[in-house]
Amino acid sequence: MEKLNVGLIGGGFMGKAHSLAYAAMPMFFWPAPAIPVRKALADVTEERARSVADQYGFEESTADWHDLIEDPDIHVIDIATPNNMHAEAAIAAAEAGKHIISEKPLANTSEDARRMYEAAKKAGVVNMAAFNYRRTPAVALAKKYIEEGSIGEILNFRGTYLQDWSADPESPLSWRFQKSVAGSGALGDIGTHVVDMARYLVGEISAVNSMLATWIPERPKQDSGVDSLGNAKGGGPKAPVDVDDEIVTMLKFENGAIGSLEATRNAWGRNNFITLEIHGTKGSIYFNYERRDELQVCFSDDPADRRGFRTIYTGPNHPYGANMWPIPALGIGYGETKIIETYDFVNAIVNGHEADPSFRDGYQISLIADAIVESAASEAWTNVQKVDS
Amino acid sequence: MEKLNVGLIGGGFMGKAHSLAYAAMPMFFWPAPAIPVRKALADVTEERARSVADQYGFEESTADWHDLIEDPDIHVIDIATPNNMHAEAAIAAAEAGKHIISEKPLANTSEDARRMYEAAKKAGVVNMAAFNYRRTPAVALAKKYIEEGSIGEILNFRGTYLQDWSADPESPLSWRFQKSVAGSGALGDIGTHVVDMARYLVGEISAVNSMLATWIPERPKQDSGVDSLGNAKGGGPKAPVDVDDEIVTMLKFENGAIGSLEATRNAWGRNNFITLEIHGTKGSIYFNYERRDELQVCFSDDPADRRGFRTIYTGPNHPYGANMWPIPALGIGYGETKIIETYDFVNAIVNGHEADPSFRDGYQISLIADAIVESAASEAWTNVQKVDS
Amino acid sequence: MEKLNVGLIGGGFMGKAHSLAYAAMPMFFWPAPAIPVRKALADVTEERARSVADQYGFEESTADWHDLIEDPDIHVIDIATPNNMHAEAAIAAAEAGKHIISEKPLANTSEDARRMYEAAKKAGVVNMAAFNYRRTPAVALAKKYIEEGSIGEILNFRGTYLQDWSADPESPLSWRFQKSVAGSGALGDIGTHVVDMARYLVGEISAVNSMLATWIPERPKQDSGVDSLGNAKGGGPKAPVDVDDEIVTMLKFENGAIGSLEATRNAWGRNNFITLEIHGTKGSIYFNYERRDELQVCFSDDPADRRGFRTIYTGPNHPYGANMWPIPALGIGYGETKIIETYDFVNAIVNGHEADPSFRDGYQISLIADAIVESAASEAWTNVQKVDS
Amino acid sequence: MEKLNVGLIGGGFMGKAHSLAYAAMPMFFWPAPAIPVRKALADVTEERARSVADQYGFEESTADWHDLIEDPDIHVIDIATPNNMHAEAAIAAAEAGKHIISEKPLANTSEDARRMYEAAKKAGVVNMAAFNYRRTPAVALAKKYIEEGSIGEILNFRGTYLQDWSADPESPLSWRFQKSVAGSGALGDIGTHVVDMARYLVGEISAVNSMLATWIPERPKQDSGVDSLGNAKGGGPKAPVDVDDEIVTMLKFENGAIGSLEATRNAWGRNNFITLEIHGTKGSIYFNYERRDELQVCFSDDPADRRGFRTIYTGPNHPYGANMWPIPALGIGYGETKIIETYDFVNAIVNGHEADPSFRDGYQISLIADAIVESAASEAWTNVQKVDS
Repeated sequence: MEKLNVGLIGGGFMGKAHSLAYAAMPMFFWPAPAIPVRKALADVTEERARSVADQYGFEESTADWHDLIEDPDIHVIDIATPNNMHAEAAIAAAEAGKHIISEKPLANTSEDARRMYEAAKKAGVVNMAAFNYRRTPAVALAKKYIEEGSIGEILNFRGTYLQDWSADPESPLSWRFQKSVAGSGALGDIGTHVVDMARYLVGEISAVNSMLATWIPERPKQDSGVDSLGNAKGGGPKAPVDVDDEIVTMLKFENGAIGSLEATRNAWGRNNFITLEIHGTKGSIYFNYERRDELQVCFSDDPADRRGFRTIYTGPNHPYGANMWPIPALGIGYGETKIIETYDFVNAIVNGHEADPSFRDGYQISLIADAIVESAASEAWTNVQKVDS
Repeated sequence: MEKLNVGLIGGGFMGKAHSLAYAAMPMFFWPAPAIPVRKALADVTEERARSVADQYGFEESTADWHDLIEDPDIHVIDIATPNNMHAEAAIAAAEAGKHIISEKPLANTSEDARRMYEAAKKAGVVNMAAFNYRRTPAVALAKKYIEEGSIGEILNFRGTYLQDWSADPESPLSWRFQKSVAGSGALGDIGTHVVDMARYLVGEISAVNSMLATWIPERPKQDSGVDSLGNAKGGGPKAPVDVDDEIVTMLKFENGAIGSLEATRNAWGRNNFITLEIHGTKGSIYFNYERRDELQVCFSDDPADRRGFRTIYTGPNHPYGANMWPIPALGIGYGETKIIETYDFVNAIVNGHEADPSFRDGYQISLIADAIVESAASEAWTNVQKVDS
Repeated sequence: MEKLNVGLIGGGFMGKAHSLAYAAMPMFFWPAPAIPVRKALADVTEERARSVADQYGFEESTADWHDLIEDPDIHVIDIATPNNMHAEAAIAAAEAGKHIISEKPLANTSEDARRMYEAAKKAGVVNMAAFNYRRTPAVALAKKYIEEGSIGEILNFRGTYLQDWSADPESPLSWRFQKSVAGSGALGDIGTHVVDMARYLVGEISAVNSMLATWIPERPKQDSGVDSLGNAKGGGPKAPVDVDDEIVTMLKFENGAIGSLEATRNAWGRNNFITLEIHGTKGSIYFNYERRDELQVCFSDDPADRRGFRTIYTGPNHPYGANMWPIPALGIGYGETKIIETYDFVNAIVNGHEADPSFRDGYQISLIADAIVESAASEAWTNVQKVDS
Repeated sequence: MEKLNVGLIGGGFMGKAHSLAYAAMPMFFWPAPAIPVRKALADVTEERARSVADQYGFEESTADWHDLIEDPDIHVIDIATPNNMHAEAAIAAAEAGKHIISEKPLANTSEDARRMYEAAKKAGVVNMAAFNYRRTPAVALAKKYIEEGSIGEILNFRGTYLQDWSADPESPLSWRFQKSVAGSGALGDIGTHVVDMARYLVGEISAVNSMLATWIPERPKQDSGVDSLGNAKGGGPKAPVDVDDEIVTMLKFENGAIGSLEATRNAWGRNNFITLEIHGTKGSIYFNYERRDELQVCFSDDPADRRGFRTIYTGPNHPYGANMWPIPALGIGYGETKIIETYDFVNAIVNGHEADPSFRDGYQISLIADAIVESAASEAWTNVQKVDS
């Protein structure tokens, strides 16, 4: 069986999730399209890289990610760094002919996203933007119902992504609150996941009308140490936040559907509250990632006295289900979304088709994010620029 | 104990709810501020008026609502007709010195709402706009927490009112789909309820940015007969719908909070899905009327390892609870919201203070609805005109 | 239209619920089978009776309930007193030829229940035991599905009734904790409601195997004053509790189904947590009264990839729904369960058929309660004695 | 860092879960107590063993599990076979001085469980029974609250484990329906998981009173092929089922608490519906594995007007959380329960303490299962025999 040697850049929480996926993917999808090999890992120092390589099961380690690019034995570059490093690494990888998977958002500017997209396109390498939540089997089931026409023509989409980890004004000024590193705040960090799923499920977004808010304008500067999210610990004097805490936007889709999206990291009591509600002419869909084994769906052609949302627990009868656990609700976790993502990525490499979502999608999402920012600034509907148009 | 003679105009479903409230209010609130007496009822024909008067326990009946206005023994005029009749009846009642409760929206144009407001103000009669959902004890509890500062300063509000009774293109072209009678569609019918609760809980709305959609542009004309909503039954040739099926709007509040609102009658599987989610600096609130005995609230000052939304079932320890049923979850129904509304209205009459929400509020809500319509037409942020400014 | 003059004995919370039902029933069910008239009310003192009569809208009042029995103008005796008074009043009413509705449990001993049953049978009067929760439209819908065979042959039933109002050891020693007045504790007070629904939905119970527990063996004696449940306020020295706080029992049904039932008033956080879960060969049903507008049902004949519990909100398409509110989730409350109960009772009187559940059912439930107590004492399966066998 | 070479017997679904855990444990728990190495895997044929070894990442494969026992390089024997093979393999492993983890139930008879327990004890090897659901962080949080006294003295426990995969009479007669292989049906397969959590959370069970039912007395014999549960596919002529489809039992705990337990694989619409409800003198706990990121808990010392179940999403602030994902609700899946289990097992080996639950616990659970079977047969309360007494 073919082996794919992976070079991973970034040993934080996201690197852990990817490492788990490389190890586990063949256990779930067998025969696997290829076996990912955890070949080499780069992090900021030799010491940290070595420790994390041991932890995540990588053979080699380095403090210089260029080593991975230059290694002819490495087939895949996996970018799991803060957002501002994605472009440089991805472009180098593309130029070296490596297949690439990059964490989301694709870059911290759409200009960088464009460069990544074009570099990968030019190089002809398989490329994926790691918007993993669409891989949740229940979201894939929603996609299936929509494609089958089971809920008819889509009229309305409402998406949310609510968290509360930055609601405390004393939480530190990590890179996620710095525009130079993160590009944006809740918008890029979490809002783009919902944008990805909106495009995946409903269709292309043509225009947006938005509000952005920064509720906590300054936070304690980071001192040494890193918390579990890769955020530095706080405690120092305060300094300004220059990204958004929250975004609310209305959406117009090319197919005539309308919608809205709300993303915030300041919603006390919400954790990973990704919700999707979709109304169609023949039915409705509701999904809440916090209860991710379930999809709720209402079919209008049920008899009126037996109609209501069905709570469907995804399992072997549903997308990806035959490769997951044998019984619904045995339990899809975050890891499984990454395992499925890795399968789809490896499959694209082996079978030579485009990955989905690709850098093209990641770039388009960056353009949508740009439109959201511009709309909030101009307080007006803003058309979304389209890739290649 | 004082008696208040009530003249009810309109014997449909809403008249039933009001009649129940008049009969039941003293049973719940004792000693009652006054005893409402179901004195006379007006409907479109003598026969129907007589039958409904018997059904709802009114002493007298008439096919001419002016009889109620002219009856010196009647103290209160209750307007439970289609929207286009509110203004004429209310103004006549005010001029005759009657206290007035009118169903919502206050009128089918803001101009009519203004005339109602001014007539009632000039006459010095107690006046109430019957936005009953704020009377749900769980909503009143949300108000209490917010006023106490328990969730801090409000950052974000998201409200929805979703139903599915008009999602079927074959459902008939009742008065609720005709602008000349209803004024607007989902906006006035259900959206205004959420606007009322947004103002009640969060504060005054200063600007809106909206989309309106009419998904089903024509429906079968009504033939004879009336369904349980007072809608005529369909089956005839199709004719145009000239009101909105759906509204999505962003909101700016005077106090700096932002938000959004979605109202539709085309959401398969949703019935009376009024939801409110409010994020504050110190906590969050979630309410879903479909599970109306519950309020969900998260307090940020709970210890991190014990923090989460609390599901609080309202009962004797909560607003209005001592007058409702003796145990939480014994069951608040639609009737109870109207019983509480009636109590607050009668209390205002007896104690000579303003009712809440008053015609002034109803007029302000009409101005917000106007701004929503204007914003949707102009595709731009629209400032809300303020009553008396 | 026929009028039925009602004499109500007992002016506590339950009297309020019945009074509401008499006033409201014709508003909901029209043309009504007959119009209940709130004729006379008896309570413990003249003063209290007069006040409560005014509150509940009764014409006359008395401190001697025999007055109601002796009044030839009264057609119906409604017994809403503590349990130990049911038998004497009901037997007197029967002997006077009055129709009778009695609160549950039917009596505080099965011997008294038998006497009530026999007296009513001998007199040929219509008689009803007021187990109202089966009137919840969602429970009636469960009944419909079962009778239609939609969930097949029933295999298993699990019922709970959990509350927390007696979990506090300082809550007072009201009549509900005294065997001489209440007969039993959680068993009679709340457990019998679930027994009623088990019989209604599944079938006759043939044997039980039980545990009873009294977790708080003494409570403060009541001093003067009455709380909202009709419980006296506490604060005095402690005295023994001689009823059960909790009951757990297994059940065998005549038709071969098995099941279990748990009832307690000591479950912190549960309020009126009446749940029913029923598994059949072709489907399952779940009901939770705390979310009583909903019935959850799973049909095995749904395709495997679309199968799951449907959350059906009861409304006009469901049992009793055409007479309730025009839209599902507008809101069934406790009052509506009593309005429907009253309709069924009045209908039985007018149409001369047996009420359901009747005193016979109430007596049978008492025999089941006896078997539960006996089983707990003997720690063995105990066969249920059957009425008339 | 120490390495632990693992020999896995059984390459079905459970072997997959264990393999995932060996690969992932150090990624989550770092520095790991030791690094598990997937050394060798045994399955029924050479071909299958080799294929599964490749899939699960094992170095070597064999069709004879004795090879693993005899291999001096193997430190740990992991038994993931059908129940009837546990004892022989475990005893051989113990005698060879290997540490052992065995899937549950420990054996298909308590006699075999006893032999396993005694062999492991005599050999002094670390031994664990793989009841993984107690490792769900939310269940561990429940344990923490109980141990801290946060819900007081426990009064009542209600546990369920409901599935529907055997509700279809046409599902095949796999080994799970054959007493000679499985020992029992729903009782051993799923009921024992709840028994494990009842002992973990509440305390030792002293007596049981039970019903067992076999709803589908015969099923189609298996033909060739294996489904995702390791069940052979059906389609042949029918043959008798000799295990239980369902068990209902009452429980008495040594500490005075009472309770009940229901387990069935015939509950349409339930998938992995493991629920625990625990009432204490100072609070209540509710857990539903189908929504496993959440624990619901009510604390009686909350003020009455703010009291209700809190929905706590487990994350870094809760047991095991610092080693899982950085944000609550990012997602605990089935894999994570096994990763935590493996960590606890490896930790016990490295630190030389007893694993929990051990074979002793597994044996005690078998004795409880025996008592349940005996009670159902004798229709009487049955005392549970205690290990070493």
